[in-house]
Amino acid sequence: MPEAPRQDSRTAPTDEELRRLDAHWRAANYLAAGQIYLLANPLLTEPLKPEHIKPRLLGHWGTSPGLNLVHTHLNRVIKNRELDALCVWGPGHGGPSVLANSWLEGSYTEKYPDATRDAPGMELLMRQFSFPGGVPSHVAPEVPGSIHEGGELGYSLAHAYGAALDNPGLLVACVIGDGEAETGPLAGSWHANKFLDPVHDGAVLPVLHLNGYKIANPTVLSRLPEEELDSLLRGYGHEPIHVGGDDPAAVHRAMAHALDTALDRIADAQRAAREEGATERPRWPVIVLRTPKGWTGPAEVDGEPVEGTWRSHQVPLSGVRDNPEHLRQLEDWLRSYRPEELFDADGRPVADVLDCVPEGTRRLGATPHANGGLLLRDLPVPSLDDFAVPVDKPGTTTHEPTRVLGDLLARIMRDTADRRDFRLVGPDETASNRLQAVFEASGKAWQAGTLPVDEDLDRHGRVMEILSEHLCQGWLEGYLLTGRHGLFSCYEAFVHIVDSMVNQHIKWLRTSRRLPWRAPIASLNYLLTSHVWRQDHNGFSHQDPGFVDHILNKSPEAVRVYLPPDANTLLSVADHVLRSRDYVNVVVAGKQPCFDWLSMDEARVHCARGAGAWEWAGTEDGSREPDVVLACAGDVPTQEVLAAAHLLRRHLPDLAVRVVNVVDLARLLPREEHPHGMSDFEYDGLFTTDKPVIFAYHGYPWLIHRLAYRRAGHPQLHVRGYKESGTTTTPFDMVVRNDLDRYRLVMDVIDRVPGLAVRATAVRQRMADARTRHHDWIREHGTDLPEVAEWTWNA
Amino acid sequence: MPEAPRQDSRTAPTDEELRRLDAHWRAANYLAAGQIYLLANPLLTEPLKPEHIKPRLLGHWGTSPGLNLVHTHLNRVIKNRELDALCVWGPGHGGPSVLANSWLEGSYTEKYPDATRDAPGMELLMRQFSFPGGVPSHVAPEVPGSIHEGGELGYSLAHAYGAALDNPGLLVACVIGDGEAETGPLAGSWHANKFLDPVHDGAVLPVLHLNGYKIANPTVLSRLPEEELDSLLRGYGHEPIHVGGDDPAAVHRAMAHALDTALDRIADAQRAAREEGATERPRWPVIVLRTPKGWTGPAEVDGEPVEGTWRSHQVPLSGVRDNPEHLRQLEDWLRSYRPEELFDADGRPVADVLDCVPEGTRRLGATPHANGGLLLRDLPVPSLDDFAVPVDKPGTTTHEPTRVLGDLLARIMRDTADRRDFRLVGPDETASNRLQAVFEASGKAWQAGTLPVDEDLDRHGRVMEILSEHLCQGWLEGYLLTGRHGLFSCYEAFVHIVDSMVNQHIKWLRTSRRLPWRAPIASLNYLLTSHVWRQDHNGFSHQDPGFVDHILNKSPEAVRVYLPPDANTLLSVADHVLRSRDYVNVVVAGKQPCFDWLSMDEARVHCARGAGAWEWAGTEDGSREPDVVLACAGDVPTQEVLAAAHLLRRHLPDLAVRVVNVVDLARLLPREEHPHGMSDFEYDGLFTTDKPVIFAYHGYPWLIHRLAYRRAGHPQLHVRGYKESGTTTTPFDMVVRNDLDRYRLVMDVIDRVPGLAVRATAVRQRMADARTRHHDWIREHGTDLPEVAEWTWNA
Repeated sequence: MPEAPRQDSRTAPTDEELRRLDAHWRAANYLAAGQIYLLANPLLTEPLKPEHIKPRLLGHWGTSPGLNLVHTHLNRVIKNRELDALCVWGPGHGGPSVLANSWLEGSYTEKYPDATRDAPGMELLMRQFSFPGGVPSHVAPEVPGSIHEGGELGYSLAHAYGAALDNPGLLVACVIGDGEAETGPLAGSWHANKFLDPVHDGAVLPVLHLNGYKIANPTVLSRLPEEELDSLLRGYGHEPIHVGGDDPAAVHRAMAHALDTALDRIADAQRAAREEGATERPRWPVIVLRTPKGWTGPAEVDGEPVEGTWRSHQVPLSGVRDNPEHLRQLEDWLRSYRPEELFDADGRPVADVLDCVPEGTRRLGATPHANGGLLLRDLPVPSLDDFAVPVDKPGTTTHEPTRVLGDLLARIMRDTADRRDFRLVGPDETASNRLQAVFEASGKAWQAGTLPVDEDLDRHGRVMEILSEHLCQGWLEGYLLTGRHGLFSCYEAFVHIVDSMVNQHIKWLRTSRRLPWRAPIASLNYLLTSHVWRQDHNGFSHQDPGFVDHILNKSPEAVRVYLPPDANTLLSVADHVLRSRDYVNVVVAGKQPCFDWLSMDEARVHCARGAGAWEWAGTEDGSREPDVVLACAGDVPTQEVLAAAHLLRRHLPDLAVRVVNVVDLARLLPREEHPHGMSDFEYDGLFTTDKPVIFAYHGYPWLIHRLAYRRAGHPQLHVRGYKESGTTTTPFDMVVRNDLDRYRLVMDVIDRVPGLAVRATAVRQRMADARTRHHDWIREHGTDLPEVAEWTWNA
Repeated sequence: MPEAPRQDSRTAPTDEELRRLDAHWRAANYLAAGQIYLLANPLLTEPLKPEHIKPRLLGHWGTSPGLNLVHTHLNRVIKNRELDALCVWGPGHGGPSVLANSWLEGSYTEKYPDATRDAPGMELLMRQFSFPGGVPSHVAPEVPGSIHEGGELGYSLAHAYGAALDNPGLLVACVIGDGEAETGPLAGSWHANKFLDPVHDGAVLPVLHLNGYKIANPTVLSRLPEEELDSLLRGYGHEPIHVGGDDPAAVHRAMAHALDTALDRIADAQRAAREEGATERPRWPVIVLRTPKGWTGPAEVDGEPVEGTWRSHQVPLSGVRDNPEHLRQLEDWLRSYRPEELFDADGRPVADVLDCVPEGTRRLGATPHANGGLLLRDLPVPSLDDFAVPVDKPGTTTHEPTRVLGDLLARIMRDTADRRDFRLVGPDETASNRLQAVFEASGKAWQAGTLPVDEDLDRHGRVMEILSEHLCQGWLEGYLLTGRHGLFSCYEAFVHIVDSMVNQHIKWLRTSRRLPWRAPIASLNYLLTSHVWRQDHNGFSHQDPGFVDHILNKSPEAVRVYLPPDANTLLSVADHVLRSRDYVNVVVAGKQPCFDWLSMDEARVHCARGAGAWEWAGTEDGSREPDVVLACAGDVPTQEVLAAAHLLRRHLPDLAVRVVNVVDLARLLPREEHPHGMSDFEYDGLFTTDKPVIFAYHGYPWLIHRLAYRRAGHPQLHVRGYKESGTTTTPFDMVVRNDLDRYRLVMDVIDRVPGLAVRATAVRQRMADARTRHHDWIREHGTDLPEVAEWTWNA
């Protein structure tokens, strides 16, 4: 049982303590503004001149003073209470703030030794910000202490909850801007508190920062009557604590009190759950912080109000190099923080400024939770032989691949019961995706009400289900970024809901891979199932295989796509992706009964190669190149290709057919384009340079062309795949509608192998007749042709 | 000023009226269950036998009785109050319910005459459901009265608000399932009531249907303490009305009362705003309806509770053909509705059943608002000459294209001030995207609090801004589907947030285009700006041009992509897309100053062709094919290609260069693949079959290969584009990082034109030197090279 934090109802801070907190805050504000404006003269040791000003003024001032206030006060409570804490900065465009605080506390210099904690380092800090070759303007991976960029907005709270899961000793503060609060994903994330276990998980403390404006508009939440906002937050299951104002001294006092109150309540709730066995869902605190946008910045510029309005969102004073009045205003503004009191003559922060800063890894910029790879342990993936399905003859028996995978995942879930560093997430689909074996090892996390009829709900469960792909993705990202493992199982069509989130995660990985101080984290693994070919019952809206296309547009160093064709290959792929680091792995696999093609040993070899010929399925005699290559990627296309090979073997026995199966899609790319890409030598050996290749692909057919267009054999490549033809129908009708069926593939072979069209007229007609028979049969019976439904490779 | 509906506090329904409402509800339940199970014997005129049962049992029973209840009671109030109403069925998988009601009220038979309102028609209705060649299982476009599929879940409330905008006489009911309510987009949509104008917009009445379970889990909202849920809904700005139970008679009475109360309140609020000038935001009612999942279905099956649990989500009784006990249970269940009381001997619904059904277009399946094309009027697009920028010489002057477009949009906004059938939506970016001229014609819709410092907020505004791409998209979809016009302006990178939503809209369009009774609607138009090449200030997270790839995966009949290279071409494209029907049009255009290349007349011709050579920019003499083609698509690539052409003209004057600009990306596709595709004859004439083509493209380079891989000249096609290399830097550094810059393009030409490498060694070195100079300069100055910043075509 994790230890509960000590309750610690501090007396209010003394005036002296408040004065020092204000000094820290002013120092951070000064550094934030300085980063936006200054190239030189960082301490204002001389009057400000145009040449001290950056030629391009870029950065977001508006949110920075509020973020600085939160940072200063978090420092105080972390130090006072000896907390392990992490903060997710939702308004990640407030990069100047988080950079300023990291530099003040010293964690920045530890990562970037050139940015010393003195005048030259301060000048570098300011100069590099938003400067070519310098640092980005947002809280990007380059920023110590961050797991969240905040560029796209919407995911801060989900990330915070993900970070808190299975970290019972961690406080995760989360600043939510009132702009971000308008997004759907953020609005949906509030209910994550129904999934937070006060025993095994840490606490999330949302700080809803209402500074009133977005880029150009007031924000919705800031313009609600206070009782309506209060009602909303109580409805979300929180106990709100309101702080607000524009007088720094009063706000410091109120914020210190609010944080003490919130942390006392958190300690109470955790103690009740951990020591007294309380099971009622706590009303977790939320702090509502109302301060002016661009607080302490210029009140008016050119006669227009700026502080407290949207005009301070980015750069309150523009054209400073050329506008002497603006230059003067900037100097007045910067000097209003009294830098001479905050930094000594060498530019070092004075003791008063640093008084609130905690030590070592308690500093927000130095917590290992924000560099999760440091905490990561290898996942105990068991031997696959314990889960493999026996395959004596290919294409004879069937298994549901995801159900077989479920047994493996259940073992991992069981083997991590004490470590608690593995979670499965999914939008209400774990059982629908046939992974329910995991429930034998862990129930579903649930802190809301229960009824006797419920099954598998578990206060301490590690399977996370909510009907929100956004929340599933956000939880898992937060969990992985803080050094744990997981898998997201999702209906294939609806994973597009998180297209933009995975974009941002891949961008994060691509950048963090290049930072030597960021340790590799576990890969983000998707299991896409209930896929396009077996959504015949839900129809057209549930049929979309395009996520793979989306992923393969991204940085090749960080993305992998696998289409295992049966149960054992799925096990092999799962083993690989669960052990991997710093990737986004997309695994597409079916949940419906599927022929077993490869034994476990064969599957291992095949998956290691990523693509290869299945000699047993073809009719080559080895004496010459084949007449045609039948290639496939995906479980249903593999079945149709094998059935087509079967038909060819029977009807055109002297045709030399090679069957190639592709598991790892990036193998098709040139080696120069992707680390998994085949050399031309390998590719040409497998696919030939001039023979027809009929490729049955799981998704949109042109993806295969886009991967293979540089290959010598590309003009002979003919791809079948999903072409947006779907409805509620039978499984085989789905492939017929999209011309991916066995009969069509045989016709494609006949049409494309030189000379065959004439020789095989009768066979071709037979295939066309079978398609006609299919059409008539399903309209009459509503089921697939018996000859299709009962087909096996060994028949 | 639109008329307010009459308040009409009806007395409670009589027992007789309730009995008839129950008869309607039972009839709908009977027909819904029958659709899932029956092939024949629709009236149970003989004992149920296995051969009456479908071989594949597909459909969602769980939500259907609740939807039927809502439908029955909406019928009552529509009839009693003579309302124009539309209902958005969030649980769209409850197709059996909406189909049943449409058949009962006769609107189904009007669209599908074979499905007569008698026994043969009933048999057809049941048989066709989820049957190959029949109708889909969801509330798809095939279903009369629907504007919402509900397959993906999350968008019902946004669609409902979109439908209500500028429809002051319309009531839009919206059933929100408690599963859907967990999604982010739905959670964010509740705040849409801060944008609903009680004067010019209609009313939205959300019905939150808590049946307690999703596929396999309880729902979060159903398991909150009632006061917490109540607080949440009040926080959303609603006044909740709670209805619940499992005794039909009691629920009928309560539901009738709840709807009367809600509609009275709506009438009060509208009257206060319309007749008394009230400006306070109304607390709109919401109905919370708690009824058991699978209500009236089998209570237990095989010893497990089913009614009231997740087990009734889809098909409560499985294997009915082969399981006599299940067959018996099914028969008992169906007979429990007493079909003999509901339908006459010929299968016609009896008078009692139809008593509540309104007449004509007041029927929910017959409202023209759900077939918006019927109501659509042409948008008054003014003459472009009023807005064109003068272009005497190409590449001399600059304009911000989106600002020029803003003037056109402002005119349209002004010219639709009375009609109110045009809206602009965007996530807080209208001004950031330089479209602020529209505010002269209409402010921003806003019903929350205001402050004196606010600008352009307008209770009656038709510009919709909220920081939620989901809500923007949902509003616009709802608005278009009900027969109006609009445009969504969005940062290019973040439009991926709605990837999945646009998928579903395209699927809707593709299907509805094939239904003769569905009239064409206005296209969904995106203006993607603040694009990848000019997000140098926000950095890597804001750089993603992949939406175009996503769109071009979809049904070619419904998607169009345009990349106008300057202000006048943007006007021409805008004119085209705003007049078009049934497409999703994606327009990518910059907001930063951009060279004017074409006069308005030239722009019209060029855009009509979609792609063409710019003779003035090349150095061909017409006597032979060019040595090289420099192609471009997008504003920044066009500028770089023109600058490269300029350099080639100066340094290699005898090289015959052709400059080709592509506006309409689908022109590159083969004609067989897309209606806009060029024939090979056209393509080869423009791009040659064997000369090097250096193609500078706005987005991911491989997209161009995927479009052009079938062309004869494809082996000579070399594409430059965005390859995920970005950060906070200068605009020109962005193109250099991605090898899209003018110097690199000249080097590409030298490397690829046969024989040129030797002859042009010095020129190539000069280009390489310029790139080195660039690197040094930006690190020193933080700005672009003066020779780049000051370049013009005519220098």
